[in-house]
Amino acid sequence: MKAAELDVLAVGNAIVDVISHASDAFLAERALAKGGMALINEATAEALYAEMGPGVEISGGSAGNTIAGVAAFGGRGAFIGKVRDDTLGDIYRHDLRSLGVRFDTPPARTGLATARCLILVTPDAERTMNTFLGACTVLEEADIDEALVASAGITYLEGYLFDLPPAKAAFRKAAAAARAAGRKVALTMSDSFCVHRHHQEFLDLIAKHIDILFANEDEIRALYGTEDIVEAMRIAARHSDIVAVTRSAAGALLAGNGELVEVPASRVEAVVDTTGAGDLFAAGMLYGLSRGLSLQDCGALGCAAAGEVISHVGARPQSDLKQLLALTAA
Amino acid sequence: MKAAELDVLAVGNAIVDVISHASDAFLAERALAKGGMALINEATAEALYAEMGPGVEISGGSAGNTIAGVAAFGGRGAFIGKVRDDTLGDIYRHDLRSLGVRFDTPPARTGLATARCLILVTPDAERTMNTFLGACTVLEEADIDEALVASAGITYLEGYLFDLPPAKAAFRKAAAAARAAGRKVALTMSDSFCVHRHHQEFLDLIAKHIDILFANEDEIRALYGTEDIVEAMRIAARHSDIVAVTRSAAGALLAGNGELVEVPASRVEAVVDTTGAGDLFAAGMLYGLSRGLSLQDCGALGCAAAGEVISHVGARPQSDLKQLLALTAA
Repeated sequence: MKAAELDVLAVGNAIVDVISHASDAFLAERALAKGGMALINEATAEALYAEMGPGVEISGGSAGNTIAGVAAFGGRGAFIGKVRDDTLGDIYRHDLRSLGVRFDTPPARTGLATARCLILVTPDAERTMNTFLGACTVLEEADIDEALVASAGITYLEGYLFDLPPAKAAFRKAAAAARAAGRKVALTMSDSFCVHRHHQEFLDLIAKHIDILFANEDEIRALYGTEDIVEAMRIAARHSDIVAVTRSAAGALLAGNGELVEVPASRVEAVVDTTGAGDLFAAGMLYGLSRGLSLQDCGALGCAAAGEVISHVGARPQSDLKQLLALTAA
Repeated sequence: MKAAELDVLAVGNAIVDVISHASDAFLAERALAKGGMALINEATAEALYAEMGPGVEISGGSAGNTIAGVAAFGGRGAFIGKVRDDTLGDIYRHDLRSLGVRFDTPPARTGLATARCLILVTPDAERTMNTFLGACTVLEEADIDEALVASAGITYLEGYLFDLPPAKAAFRKAAAAARAAGRKVALTMSDSFCVHRHHQEFLDLIAKHIDILFANEDEIRALYGTEDIVEAMRIAARHSDIVAVTRSAAGALLAGNGELVEVPASRVEAVVDTTGAGDLFAAGMLYGLSRGLSLQDCGALGCAAAGEVISHVGARPQSDLKQLLALTAA
């Protein structure tokens, strides 16, 4: 097998975040489920946007945030996702490419606009997400470049793709191509509601295709129907080499090579906006794995990157993550 | 004279900021004058954008930031400025209206896109601005609604408008309409290069039309050709009721009612991005003046609002400025 040309290829929804501060009352009045991600249509997106406060526009999307983080560590990354040929699409492409991430998926020339996620950050720094998927709905199998997949050490897939049938097919093609090339496949569960929506399919996929699994506590509980996180991780570890479970302020639990490793969260002076915490944890882990670091060190990089991203508004790193490499034993 | 329906009407360039981190070397390689504002054309804007890092898009523009700040204090504000009927223009309008600011200037239906300012923030938190004025170049006299001007206690004008002949005519119309209605006219000098570009016109304008003058040290020195700030303020005070000079970390000097008042800068834990400091200082001052506060209290609100905005990325407040009112004696 040829050495991997890229460290990580991420496949996900290409979404521009519109981040705004909101009160708990604002959420309650609109029956928005705090901390969750809801899919909304264009009309609902426009109505909510008209009511919400001033926004900050930043490229986002779960896998997009992760690959931005991998690049900020110095990793070689690529992204597959669908934007429209519009202003937000141009911004999205610029923001990834400017980090050195390859992003060559052709934009949609017709149809819905580039996706946006209206993110309401409450005073407790929790984010509530409302996503209009727009052009992401036309990501399809043909967008998966198998040679690109084969060139990446790890192909990382976001669970949210399962919300769209054509994206789901793209997802399966990417996973199969990676396996066929002898590469690793990583998956993030994305959201416990997403797990509920696609429960059996996730179980099958993990059993057959996933080498590296990312989840938070709610997601892995929902997946294996048990309150016991360690028990759930043990089940997942029958299929996947590495299982990483994030636990917010409690850090992360990692299972791999028969070990169970506990990693503390990074100390953060003030938590400003939790958007992207899980995505950046995955970035640190994936970068570490691509460099052959120990599970403990991979977890430390993940927690440190998550700590950076929750200390400011926005789900992508604002500082050079290479300085975090000093945290590792390497 | 009728009581003012609005506290402040701001007239300025409607610009979306694209904020990115950059090294000093990046500026040096491109001969970008650190700390300044350069006007660039569309081709230069595209070339620079392609080279710069990932951006955060936030509505900006000097007078736009100021009126956003006035609204964040609880003031009643309106804005006159020109966007295109495009995505960034929609974002700009949303962001002001969502704060309760009236913004009814019709967008341009043809021609150049909504203006953007590519802002490079160096590790010392200094911002270097590169502005493509786009649709702002077609703001004209017809866009000045004299009834709106007459309804505002203070009409606030940004000096940058002098860079565009049609905007300059709009500026003069607004100043004349405010004076005719017995209202106050405020001006910010905007930039010392802008002062150099329009030196005699600024001198004439201030002598004839300006009640409240905002400048920083460089600007007022450039205007009156003296190194002595207090001397320069004394000259300005012959024409204007209030002269406010900002001095970065040294706070502000205010002249009015025959007094000279010194206001210390707010203590800020970490200066992250100085973009908008002067704009938010003006917001606090204008809000205070609209409420009849003392010069000292107006300055305290200005410095506190500037302190808030330099503690995060972006030139508009991220927190409720009403809490700063506790700083005043009122």
